[in-house]
Amino acid sequence: MKNLFIKQVVEEVGKEVELYGWVNNIRDHKKIIFVDLRDRTGVVQLVGDITFKKLSPEDVIYVKGLVKKRPENLINPNINTGEVEVEVKDMKILSEADELPIDMSKDELNVSLPTLLDYRSLTLRHRKIKSIFTVQTAVIDEFRNSLKQMGFIEFQAPILVPAQAEGGAQVFPVSYFTHKAYLAQSPQLYKQIMLGVFERVFTVTHAFRAEPSVTTRHLTEYISLDAEMAFIDTWQELMDAVENVIKNIVESVFKDYPEELKLFNATKPLVPNKIPRIKLSEALKIVGDRLKEDLSEEPDLAPAHEEEICKWAREEKGSDFVFITHYPTVKRPFYTYPDPDDPDLTLSFDLLGLGIEWVTGGQRINEYKKLVENIKKWGNKPEDLNIYLQAFQYGMPREGGFAMGAERITMKLLKLSNIREASLFPRDMERVDIKLK
Amino acid sequence: MKNLFIKQVVEEVGKEVELYGWVNNIRDHKKIIFVDLRDRTGVVQLVGDITFKKLSPEDVIYVKGLVKKRPENLINPNINTGEVEVEVKDMKILSEADELPIDMSKDELNVSLPTLLDYRSLTLRHRKIKSIFTVQTAVIDEFRNSLKQMGFIEFQAPILVPAQAEGGAQVFPVSYFTHKAYLAQSPQLYKQIMLGVFERVFTVTHAFRAEPSVTTRHLTEYISLDAEMAFIDTWQELMDAVENVIKNIVESVFKDYPEELKLFNATKPLVPNKIPRIKLSEALKIVGDRLKEDLSEEPDLAPAHEEEICKWAREEKGSDFVFITHYPTVKRPFYTYPDPDDPDLTLSFDLLGLGIEWVTGGQRINEYKKLVENIKKWGNKPEDLNIYLQAFQYGMPREGGFAMGAERITMKLLKLSNIREASLFPRDMERVDIKLK
Repeated sequence: MKNLFIKQVVEEVGKEVELYGWVNNIRDHKKIIFVDLRDRTGVVQLVGDITFKKLSPEDVIYVKGLVKKRPENLINPNINTGEVEVEVKDMKILSEADELPIDMSKDELNVSLPTLLDYRSLTLRHRKIKSIFTVQTAVIDEFRNSLKQMGFIEFQAPILVPAQAEGGAQVFPVSYFTHKAYLAQSPQLYKQIMLGVFERVFTVTHAFRAEPSVTTRHLTEYISLDAEMAFIDTWQELMDAVENVIKNIVESVFKDYPEELKLFNATKPLVPNKIPRIKLSEALKIVGDRLKEDLSEEPDLAPAHEEEICKWAREEKGSDFVFITHYPTVKRPFYTYPDPDDPDLTLSFDLLGLGIEWVTGGQRINEYKKLVENIKKWGNKPEDLNIYLQAFQYGMPREGGFAMGAERITMKLLKLSNIREASLFPRDMERVDIKLK
Repeated sequence: MKNLFIKQVVEEVGKEVELYGWVNNIRDHKKIIFVDLRDRTGVVQLVGDITFKKLSPEDVIYVKGLVKKRPENLINPNINTGEVEVEVKDMKILSEADELPIDMSKDELNVSLPTLLDYRSLTLRHRKIKSIFTVQTAVIDEFRNSLKQMGFIEFQAPILVPAQAEGGAQVFPVSYFTHKAYLAQSPQLYKQIMLGVFERVFTVTHAFRAEPSVTTRHLTEYISLDAEMAFIDTWQELMDAVENVIKNIVESVFKDYPEELKLFNATKPLVPNKIPRIKLSEALKIVGDRLKEDLSEEPDLAPAHEEEICKWAREEKGSDFVFITHYPTVKRPFYTYPDPDDPDLTLSFDLLGLGIEWVTGGQRINEYKKLVENIKKWGNKPEDLNIYLQAFQYGMPREGGFAMGAERITMKLLKLSNIREASLFPRDMERVDIKLK
């Protein structure tokens, strides 16, 4: 079994090591050939009298060799083993690669999005592409850690659901034996049910949206990070929890993954201890004033307005994030709690960050009768939501929660231009691994 | 916000506390009424002059009261707060519950499986039922921790897949815009792809099997715990990794959840450092000898034989687990590595534990041409597996992996008789939350 990773060779100077990895690139300098060997931890230069002629990029090889310090003037500061090289004594090819369809040897992959995805199993191996998913795993881990520290318990939400629960026709139907089932649009109803059991819960799950549109920020299958908490005094506590989670994610990624972030020139977003909280109506006024438009009748922020209010937050409040609160009742799902001071508005919020929505959340209706009324008003059938409604019929405290998409967060932290780059195997209207014909 | 959990009241003797929770049960002793208040951490007895008359089971209440030590003779050893009670000074009903369809107040719920599931949002709140899922979360957490410690990285496998990749018709089709997609039968192909990126990977995901049969040990949607590792010298290393994971799961659950396990009279299974590893042909011989049957021509172990070989392992080897290896090629998927000594057999294994399959795994074919051949031989189209095949076309070391179902493990650790009891919201041929009509 492989027991030494490439980044560890710097600690083995003067010793003989056995290494396993992929041929990252081959540099033929007439008299001498250099090979860069790659594994998941980095790249190291191989030299030696041994013939590297037979090698091709992406071949999997075993080498035995001596780790040597490089002369001062030949140190390569761009790689984490740049101070050393390995003088190869023995080599075996373990798996031969076909000729590559794209050049994988450069720091930037420089391929179009369709090519990036047509050769996904290959392109994911590129140092920069791989780093996106190292960061994504860290985002998810830190979501999990933050919530555990706040006393939340993880549960597994089902993917197959019986009804188009949250309304809207944008669900995928599944042929379920002789019946129909659907793919969950979110774990919303299940996380609320689970409050009756564990009071504070979270889930890392996949959610599905059959929106028939192609944008740079939507996927049909995405990773949903969802939390829900009971026994709140006020819905402001939900935003406190979001602040904590976002702060932890940003801090831990920027602390633990400096090398990965550097590849994207990522800069640490400003997360103040108190992220500004402003009503949608105020936000529309601020944006309207800045853009010299009358937005007072708008029910929501358009993408350009989201960008503008984020600029405002950064300039005026020293924050790359801003909570927008009190969205209109008509724009939110049936379970959203109406504002007691104005029932046309809701106790709901979005957290915008770096120009785009990161988190959505709010207080939920926990009164059984009010919930049944709303389900009817929204055009759903209470009997389809039988199991959900039980949770409220048999006692449910004041509660609320929030959700965020892991790909969105990854995309914004690394300044990617298309959310597909932040999904290992992105699904959209035109592609499920292979292009749909 | 609630800031004191019920199990913590034992540390507050002599102090006034504020508690939030559900009315677990009401005991009317003519002159005095006792109420047990429940939250996710336990139950505490409430007493006082205050009128409890209005309360019903599952009402959500707030109480303020004084924590008092109970007299020696009134200590209740069955609950974790049995030494104290709370003398209530003030009480508010936060959410009123309808009359319950079932009695939730007893230690055993004693309802039929259909009733258990018809009222799932309620029955999940019962102490014993809830404990199943506390243990399940711990199983998943420990799977994750064990693999991280061995240098594995978590990734998110897609649920929507383009083809019926692993063969067999037992997949659920999804209407995907104007096309068809399918629900993943397992994350198998994706975890193999990810080896080219991260070398050692795992995922916690949902998998779907459209088997048109109703058994006590199958679900149509289940939690799949999947791992895959590259650069193995021999497939025996895969079993070493499984041993480590299973040992850690058993140890940590029995160390951290004694109260939950006690409710099920669970006994700790015997996991030796080396779990016996025997060939299927040997296992058939042993079972045949014990049952006085000729099983030498059988291609697999029937459920009764799995139980018998587990009995043998316990009696003869002091182990509640046994690896069965070298399953016939015809019984395994196309990617399973043939045994070089006998290509009718494979370098595959199942781990049986306590009478049933816990884990399945094996070495995979990592040679591109051999894999393409096998895909054709198994009746699949290589072009449907384009993205998967790329991973092998461009260099893949010797590798293998394993998978286990979280519900199976939970079921066996707690000696549940039906796997549906170990699924929060079990889906089967007849039910997706509500009974299919």
